[in-house]
Formats: sequence, C-alpha cells, structure tokens
Amino acid sequence: MAIKWINYDQLDASAKLASDAPADLTKVMTAERVQKYSAKMAAGMDFNYAAKNVDDTILGDLQKLADEAGLVEKFEALYNGEVINTGENRLVLHHLTRGQLGNKVEKDGVDKRAFYVEQQSRIAEFAKKVHSGEIANEKGEKFTTAVQIGIGGSDLGPRAMYLALENWARVNGFLKMQAQFISNVDPDDAAGVLANVDVAHSIFILVSKSGTTLETLTNEAFVKDALKKAGLDPAKHMIAVTSETSPLAGNSDYLDAFFMDDYIGGRYSSTSAVGGAILSLAFGPDIFARFLSGAAEEDKTATEKDILKNPDLLDALIGVYERNVLGYGSTAVLPYSQAMSRFPAHLQQLDMESNGKSVNRFGEPVDYVTGPVIFGEPGTNGQHSFYQLLHQGTDIIPLQFIGFKESQQGVDVDIQGSTSQKKLCANVVAQIMAFAGGKADDNKNKNFAGNRPSSIIVGEKLTPEALGALLAHFENKVMFQGFAWNLNSFDQEGVQLGKVLAKKVLAHETDGALKAYSDLFEI
Amino acid sequence: MAIKWINYDQLDASAKLASDAPADLTKVMTAERVQKYSAKMAAGMDFNYAAKNVDDTILGDLQKLADEAGLVEKFEALYNGEVINTGENRLVLHHLTRGQLGNKVEKDGVDKRAFYVEQQSRIAEFAKKVHSGEIANEKGEKFTTAVQIGIGGSDLGPRAMYLALENWARVNGFLKMQAQFISNVDPDDAAGVLANVDVAHSIFILVSKSGTTLETLTNEAFVKDALKKAGLDPAKHMIAVTSETSPLAGNSDYLDAFFMDDYIGGRYSSTSAVGGAILSLAFGPDIFARFLSGAAEEDKTATEKDILKNPDLLDALIGVYERNVLGYGSTAVLPYSQAMSRFPAHLQQLDMESNGKSVNRFGEPVDYVTGPVIFGEPGTNGQHSFYQLLHQGTDIIPLQFIGFKESQQGVDVDIQGSTSQKKLCANVVAQIMAFAGGKADDNKNKNFAGNRPSSIIVGEKLTPEALGALLAHFENKVMFQGFAWNLNSFDQEGVQLGKVLAKKVLAHETDGALKAYSDLFEI
Repeated sequence: MAIKWINYDQLDASAKLASDAPADLTKVMTAERVQKYSAKMAAGMDFNYAAKNVDDTILGDLQKLADEAGLVEKFEALYNGEVINTGENRLVLHHLTRGQLGNKVEKDGVDKRAFYVEQQSRIAEFAKKVHSGEIANEKGEKFTTAVQIGIGGSDLGPRAMYLALENWARVNGFLKMQAQFISNVDPDDAAGVLANVDVAHSIFILVSKSGTTLETLTNEAFVKDALKKAGLDPAKHMIAVTSETSPLAGNSDYLDAFFMDDYIGGRYSSTSAVGGAILSLAFGPDIFARFLSGAAEEDKTATEKDILKNPDLLDALIGVYERNVLGYGSTAVLPYSQAMSRFPAHLQQLDMESNGKSVNRFGEPVDYVTGPVIFGEPGTNGQHSFYQLLHQGTDIIPLQFIGFKESQQGVDVDIQGSTSQKKLCANVVAQIMAFAGGKADDNKNKNFAGNRPSSIIVGEKLTPEALGALLAHFENKVMFQGFAWNLNSFDQEGVQLGKVLAKKVLAHETDGALKAYSDLFEI
Repeated sequence: MAIKWINYDQLDASAKLASDAPADLTKVMTAERVQKYSAKMAAGMDFNYAAKNVDDTILGDLQKLADEAGLVEKFEALYNGEVINTGENRLVLHHLTRGQLGNKVEKDGVDKRAFYVEQQSRIAEFAKKVHSGEIANEKGEKFTTAVQIGIGGSDLGPRAMYLALENWARVNGFLKMQAQFISNVDPDDAAGVLANVDVAHSIFILVSKSGTTLETLTNEAFVKDALKKAGLDPAKHMIAVTSETSPLAGNSDYLDAFFMDDYIGGRYSSTSAVGGAILSLAFGPDIFARFLSGAAEEDKTATEKDILKNPDLLDALIGVYERNVLGYGSTAVLPYSQAMSRFPAHLQQLDMESNGKSVNRFGEPVDYVTGPVIFGEPGTNGQHSFYQLLHQGTDIIPLQFIGFKESQQGVDVDIQGSTSQKKLCANVVAQIMAFAGGKADDNKNKNFAGNRPSSIIVGEKLTPEALGALLAHFENKVMFQGFAWNLNSFDQEGVQLGKVLAKKVLAHETDGALKAYSDLFEI
C-alpha cells in the first residue's frame, strides 16, 4: 500500500475524535482502570495512561486515526530507507544505530546498519585502549576525563544520558572516566569547565557533523589554546565525531575520528557516534551496548499496529488528542529521579525542534496547532516549585511522570517508617491522584478542580537498558506525532534566520533597528 | 487613599487595552524605537522593550491600568507592612532584607529591618570565622565546602545565584568555599552529592523555615549518617537556617542557627538568611552585601509611578497585555550567559508558584487567565534546540532575553575576526530582529512570519550588583502581575493536596485507584 501523506484535519478520525466526550478524571478513576490502561514497554517498564482523559471510545478513535493516517506504515517506510526528511532529501536512520528493524538499507553503495556498527566497534576499540592506557597522554599517563565539545543535539542528549548513568556507573564499578561538556559560545562556559578539569589528563571530543558549527569550532580553539598554554600538544588530546566528508575527518589535528552521516539529525543522535564516543569512554562500550539494546527493544514495540500494544504510538496519539481536541498548549515532563535532571531539556529539544512547525511536509501552512511547549524538572523538586500552577493555574498542562521502584545507588535511610525511595514513589503516586481527582473545599483557595491529566512510565530501576528504552520511547512518540500532523519532523529551517543575521551583525552589515540593538552591546 | 482590590476584568483600562491594535513588529522596528523604548534599571542595566507589541497608545493604557489598579500604591502598602498575604494573614517583607523602602515595619514588637540586618551580621561574622579557620573541623582544619540542604525556594534561588557568580568569584579571588546542593527526596541525590564532596571539610546548611520539611529532614538524616560513618560528629558540621520557633533553633545538634520568619516566602528568600548563609560562606559577606545593594537599588525603581521609569512594573504590564489580550500561554526566559543556567528554573518557581492561581485574593474564582508557563535555557544553547518552535511553531511565545557586553571571566579567543563574547552578543541581537521582523520566503518552510515579541535586559557584566538587580526585577514583576490579576501571590495552597495524599500512601491508608498506583510501585 502506497503511503498517503495527509493533513491531520483531513482525517475522518480527527473529526470523530473532536466529537467524543473526554473522560472526566474526577469520576472515572478506579483500581480496575489503573490496571487496565497500561502498555508494556521495553526493559520491563510500563506506560500507564489511566489518568488521561481517554476511555474505550476515544481509544478506539485513536486507533482509527492511527490506521487512517498509516502511522505505523510510515514508520516502516522510515526504517526501510524511504526519503522521509523530504525537505532536505534525506533518509532518517537513527533507528539503525541500535538494530535492523526491516530491510537492509543501502545508500551510496553502503549498508548503513553495517556502517553504524563499524563506528561503534571503532569507538569501542578506541575506548578500551584509552582505559587500558595503550592510548595515553604525552607522559604516558592515563586519561581520566572526557570533555565533549558540541551544541544542541551534540550536547543535550549525550549530557542527559551521561548524568542519568553517572552515579549508577560509579557504584557498580563502570565509571571509567568523568565526563564534562562545553557547549555555549559564551566564553564563560569553556573557561568555567577548563578551570575545573585537569587538561593534561583529558580527552576532548569535538562533535560537529559538518565540521563548521560556529560555537563548536570556537570552543575547539578555546580548548587548543588552553592545551598549548599548559605545554601540551592538542593533537594528542582531541578526537572528532563528524561526517566522513567534513574537514575534521582524516585530519592529523585529531587522535582519531568517528563518523556520523546526514541521515541522523542532531537531536536523534544520542545512539550514534555522537553519544557513543563520550558514553563509551565514560562507562565502557559494554554499557553503551546495553543502552542501545534497550532502545532497540523499544523500537520493536513501536512497530505494533495495535495502539494498546504500542506505548510510543499511544503516547503520541493521546498527546495529539490533548493538543488538538482539548487545546492544551504545553506538556511537562517530570521524572522522579534526580539522575534524569537534564532529560527534560533533551526532550525539549527533541520535541520542540522536531514538531514546532507551521507548514506540512509539502510546505503548505496547516490550520491546526502542532508541537507543544515542553518543560520539566525532577520530582519531588518541582512539587516545591511550579506544581502550584499545575494544580491550581487557569490553564491545564498535561503531565508525563517517570518513576522507578528502586534507587540507582542503593544507599538509603529509613525515617518515620519509610525509606527515601518509598517516599519518592509515594509522592509521584499521590500527585497523579491529586491532579486527576482534585478535592472539593468550601474555601475556594484550597479547592482543587482536578481533571488534570497525567501518564506515568514505571520502571524497576534506571539502568542503561531502561534509559535506552526511555530515549527511544520519546523519539518514537515525537516521530508519530509528526506523522499525525503531516510535518517533516527531521529538518529545522527555523534556526537559520538568526544565524544569517548574526553574521551580518559581526560583519557590521547592519542598519536600522538591528544596528541600534548592536549599538546597545557596542558590537 | 485606601487601596481597592479589584479584579483585572473589572478595570476600565483592561477593556480599553483589549480594543487597542497591537503594534505589528514586522512593520514598526526602527533605530529610533530601539533607542526610545528603553527603561533604566539598577546596576547600569537597561530594560529594552522595543520588540514588544506595544506603541504609545498601548503604553498609555498600561499606565492607566497601573493607576486605576493602584499597583504602585499596593507595593507601598506591602513594604510599609500591611497584611498583603491575606490568605495566611502575613506581612510580605522580603524587600526589607535589602533596604528600608518606607516606614519602619514592626511586628510582634520587633523592627523587622533590624532583625534581617542582625541575621546578616551574624552570618557575616560566622562566615569570617569559617574562612579564617577560627571555626574549623574536629582536626582544626579549615572547611572548604558548604552544602545546602533545602528544597524549592531553599534550593532553586540560592543555587541559581551561586552558579551565577561562581566563576566570576573564582577569577576575582572571592571564591572562599565551593558550594553544593542537596534537594530531592530521591536518595540518589544525596548519595550522588556525598560521593563527590569531602565530608570531613564540609559544612552542611540545613534550611527549613518550619523545621519540618520532609525532604530536608530526610536528607539531614542522610548526611548525618554519612558523617557518622566517616567518624565525624554531625553537630560540628551543621548549621541551621530556620525560624526562631522551629525545633532547629537553639538546638545543640547545630554549630549555629540563623533566622528567617513567616513574612518571607521560600521563593522570595534568596536575599534572606536562606541565600545569605550559603552565599556568604561561598563568596564572603562583602559579595553578598553587593548582591543585596543591587536588589535594593532595583526595588527603588519599582516605586516609580511613571511606568516608563519603572522597568519592573512595565515588564509586568506588558506581560499582562500578552497574557490577557494577546492570549499567549507561556514565556521563555533566555539569558545569554552560561552562568545564569539555572536562573530560568528559579524564575519558573517564582512566577508559577506565585501567580499560578484561579481564585482572587478573596478566594473568588476569576474569569481570566493568570500566570503563564515559564521555561528557558541559556543562549546560544537554546538556538540549537527549542528555538525552532519559537520561530516557526503554531503558538507565539513571548521571550525575555538577558545579555551582557562583557564576559565574567575575561578569558576569550578571537576566531574569524571576533571574540566569543562578541559572537554571543551578535547572536542575541540577531535573534531579537529575526523574531520581530521575520523573513518572507516563497518556500514556506523557510518563511518566518515574524511579529514574535521579545524584550531584553542589557548589562555591562554579570556582577553581584547586576545579579541582585535582576533578581529583584523579576520578583517585583511577579508581584505587580499578581496585583494586576488581584491574586495573593504569596501563598501556595496548590502544593498541599499532594502532601496529604503522599502521607496516606506511606501509611497504606489507600484504596481504589490510589492503592492500584501504589501497587505499581510496590509501596
């Protein structure tokens, strides 16, 4: 069956959905519903959507929408190598970094799965040599720190993944090297990181697909400067992650180079060499492989046509329902895990850069809202902060909770009859019900209207496999939403204009208001 | 004149505002406008609002709104000691921590300004003794690290302020001690921090107004456990910041206790002992005093009745216009300064916890939208992330930029004819104009509709004074918006229900859906 790319508002199911009455969460919450509205994810996790405004009728219509729009078929086309990123005439292949879901994908005579695996093997070999000391600094001393230099997708995803596993790795003996990250063109970023690392024992990983990203090259120069001032040879302290055709490839300024390609967008690159180099150096290649296996397993669940067995698709569809039918403008991501402190920032990029668009994949303006604002902080911290608005504000914000039964480090204290981990879990459970059920109070200032929807992903423990599955879940969710809205989720033309104008400012080719603003900064 | 508390939609000016045509930013941007639409802030900073959808007519109506609602008179009442937090029957006195704006404020026979100053002096004396080694660990060795244990306002504000000045302090010789923060009840938070600090040389600051905050007491037990396991006496390593009536006051478990009171809410407590202890230990009391002086100076500008001379009030009013007339649901805070990486998270609490409410100060439901969602990350990082949606998404998100002419650390490199700092400034300037002016393109995927509003605060350098002024600016902005919406911005009843339900879960006093969720986590 040929794929039909069709706008959301042209789907029969979208009109049907709009006529359904949303489930009122102040009335429907029962134990049976909590047990029933749950879908199995990879790594033993569950996606529970009992506290969403859906019922069997709405779920049936969401299934119709998925079928009518051919959402799973579009995913099949993607992983089988069709040109899904039409604006840039590119394949979309990040799933191939973690498994072969469908047919062999060849491009320019290269088996792309084999290419990604080859890079993983080369990184693994390199990391093992660094860990053993076979690759060492000029004095023959082992490297202790890996510093990623990259921005956007070369920063947020890898940084979030590193932080998510850092403490877990330490207590389990897998923390081979500390990782640090330099991203911002603000010179205070590089200067601040460099003031806190031992450059003589650091490997710097320069990450830029094109090899021309302004921020990254500027920070490379910054780092080279610091290495030279310390009497060190930059070429003995740097590796590159880039495309094979970039000026950084095959360049003697680097110890080695590992490759990505045009078929993996920055925000989808955590499982490619972009995440692979830093995570393999930090934790060892075996841990990175476990992370990939969790993602691969989740990708498989995303091929299911039955939405009740496909949590990635189901999460996407419920999000579309909340955005286009219920009219909610933002979504909060709330992991009850301090290790996931930067996971919401990664999802913010992943989602908002993919689906923050006003034209469909044919460049035609759409008449419906698309990607929401994504924000979030770890719980319980957020409970003492912005949850006030979530509970009693005038707008309703759908919530995505994430929680784990066990802590990562296994160190805990028992206070007032319970461990901290139990308190953490009790809090997230309590929040779901507080948001859903609300509480009537004659003092309206203490009244909770309720009917504020949330889902929760429940896992045993935040392991590499669980993290990989979570990453893939949200990547696939965003992809399915892009399909439902008929967007190209894989380009980012909206970031171009600012770049062009910044160049003009630096070249003093400005007039009018732009010059006046430049004058404020004495540029 | 007696103050009249009146709902926003009952103000004549609100109806007038709704009938004004918003300025179209694709048409109005000129050098003259950029120069004219600027208001002076403290610490030599400027609040520039040329790229907001206002013109002289709208500004005139915003002035009428401010006058009709008596916004500055309400601020006067607040700093003169009226009971502004009516729900909790409390004064609102955070401004008094940095200066005496009006009459002497006495409560329970105490001059409150004198009380706050006394606490600052006691903290200063304590910090100096720690720095000199007069107060030292059991072995007589100097303390090198200060670890704050607190959550919400006892964490986000102080943490954001510390990070904002850490590198500046280091290069200028003011970094007396490193600071760390433990907040989350997640045991992995405390375990992770403790794995990275030298507990034998650490002072722990327990921050809880009531002395009963669950997370904080749990983390205190966690820390005491670690100290004991290291053979150390917790009472020699801990101080408390609390209210005079709390169980933590006058308690031999602590080296000393410094006091706050019920008249300063957590999210407004960065300039009280809550921020004072950690910042004075980290940077020395003189730097903390400079931070307070910047805030005090900004507070004075907030007393101006002419909105064009009162940037805090003007920012608030433009925000109200965007929220209630233009219908925008969220606001992004975008500091072009890596040091301000956690400032948006602090503002997220400050704003959303203060004004995320659906009832007015008399507990009556309001018929208009109130506080928006607040989110943000530092630029240029955000440019490579969620700015795609800001430029081309279907919803318009008002933006608050912050930028500085100079870097904090003064270390920079010259690449392609410009320093990193110049590139940073060029980028923020370019973004303002890209958002405002847009760019027509026949390829609609490369088209920018423009007319996306932003303001910018421009400073020389992020110093303690500038940081204090920025903090006060946003505190005052949120306060004025709360007055305009007729809310009580100083309570937070919305956080209570979750606490109650969490206790039930831990006590196994659950049934139905709540029990089913508890079972998912095996609580």
